[in-house]
Amino acid sequence: MSCELCSSRHPREIWRDAMFYVIDAADADLPGFVRVIATRHVKEMADLTAAEKSRLFRILECIEKIMLEELAPDKVNWASLGNMVPHVHWHIIARWSDDAFFPGSVWSERLRVMPSDKYAERRRKAQDMLARLVRELEKLD
Amino acid sequence: MSCELCSSRHPREIWRDAMFYVIDAADADLPGFVRVIATRHVKEMADLTAAEKSRLFRILECIEKIMLEELAPDKVNWASLGNMVPHVHWHIIARWSDDAFFPGSVWSERLRVMPSDKYAERRRKAQDMLARLVRELEKLD
Repeated sequence: MSCELCSSRHPREIWRDAMFYVIDAADADLPGFVRVIATRHVKEMADLTAAEKSRLFRILECIEKIMLEELAPDKVNWASLGNMVPHVHWHIIARWSDDAFFPGSVWSERLRVMPSDKYAERRRKAQDMLARLVRELEKLD
Repeated sequence: MSCELCSSRHPREIWRDAMFYVIDAADADLPGFVRVIATRHVKEMADLTAAEKSRLFRILECIEKIMLEELAPDKVNWASLGNMVPHVHWHIIARWSDDAFFPGSVWSERLRVMPSDKYAERRRKAQDMLARLVRELEKLD
């Protein structure tokens, strides 16, 4: 059985090392959305080595920090579900009180549409955030 | 403004130390559901100290490991959202392909009801899992 996270190079990949790759996962509702994916095909967090877990947490923390500094969202959401694609990946998502799903999860019922001027402004900032994120990820030990 | 995670002692708390407390968050749909809550009122993961983050990840890993060993779920979900209650807390949830929401998130649309015999069997195992979890958490450095 082929796994889409193993077999295809994501067109919006922004960074990778031997253990993980990172993509810009923003969509029409969520301008600040970053996904971190294990390069190895492992199903559960428990399947990662201690070195992989340690590096993963540092990557996730780095993303959250830069997201908070550059986007000033109302909240940051962290999630690793993998029910549909059982290959370890993490979602780090900037949330605003006027986004499509707030205060629900991004998998909850849609409640509204983010005002288009707000979306455009946040997406512009998200582009800068992603550029800075790549520089910071390069500096991780 | 009062925070429910600060002000009230949860009736299903199973363990606590100076930094975090853990509750049995199972409900009628999800027999294996554990929540970890920061004792300090902090909004984002970035607001935790390095020592708190390190301990938190060890607690989360411990919960996932024991959940996998004792319940053999189809998948484990990790999430920290905090959109409704902006006080750091984590959900670690055992998921089965026949649960109410699978393969969606537990915040997604309900798709079915878990067969009651399956629920009862898994809940019985979850009680054993929780008892073992408390013992293992006591042993964490």
